[in-house]
Amino acid sequence: MISDAVSDWALHPQLAADTVPLGDLSLARVLLMQDAHYPWLILVPRRPDARDIIDLTETEQAQLTREIAAASQALRQATSCSKLNVAALGNVVPQLHVHVIARRTDDAAWPRPVWGVVPPLPYEAAARDALTAALRRQLWPEEP
Amino acid sequence: MISDAVSDWALHPQLAADTVPLGDLSLARVLLMQDAHYPWLILVPRRPDARDIIDLTETEQAQLTREIAAASQALRQATSCSKLNVAALGNVVPQLHVHVIARRTDDAAWPRPVWGVVPPLPYEAAARDALTAALRRQLWPEEP
Repeated sequence: MISDAVSDWALHPQLAADTVPLGDLSLARVLLMQDAHYPWLILVPRRPDARDIIDLTETEQAQLTREIAAASQALRQATSCSKLNVAALGNVVPQLHVHVIARRTDDAAWPRPVWGVVPPLPYEAAARDALTAALRRQLWPEEP
Repeated sequence: MISDAVSDWALHPQLAADTVPLGDLSLARVLLMQDAHYPWLILVPRRPDARDIIDLTETEQAQLTREIAAASQALRQATSCSKLNVAALGNVVPQLHVHVIARRTDDAAWPRPVWGVVPPLPYEAAARDALTAALRRQLWPEEP
């Protein structure tokens, strides 16, 4: 499910350090942010040198839009969220990545954006495994 | 260029208060945020009741992606930005809207996201008019 063998692309080490990998969609690697405050996916298009969405081709941008929608639907199905936040910022980590975050009106940062409000909260292993399993079932329904 | 006559859609009053309208693309109204700290566009799809991007149809999501790209290119052309920030948050104003913000490494919030960092800075009229004219030329090149 995860392979970079035929590409110059490699996941940025900061993104690798902050997340656990869920798998690859056609264009993007899907990561779960290690922050139990919010169910929080990050999509990283496997394209070297892309910083902004418009650095992708139009075809890739359309595919990224479909993958953002799939991640959004997976979060809606797997969590009791009241709002989705979708953002490509990349001011600190330059590799193009898109945050897809399930928000609740009682979460730690609501109604503010999540960045920099409270330190990340480590997951308990069982809760993280249950969430990643539910998200994987939504994102890759054909797999066993 | 701006018309809502055949739609139940109306711009949310908070977005109207914070911005000046630039015009309408096929799907979204384009607004300039009244904050001279950052060249900052907001795209508002003219679809009633949409809160999240996935509340739009797939066709509308694809069109929104093209309009975000057009807004991004317009900002790149009209400003000396080093990074674009693209975000659909909507925790405070529930009407679906997408921020497209031109960032510079010497701007007031860099490298943080812009929301809530410093109060908005009013534009001088001449600077605002020059920016809106440059952005309109990029977004609607066929108009006089």
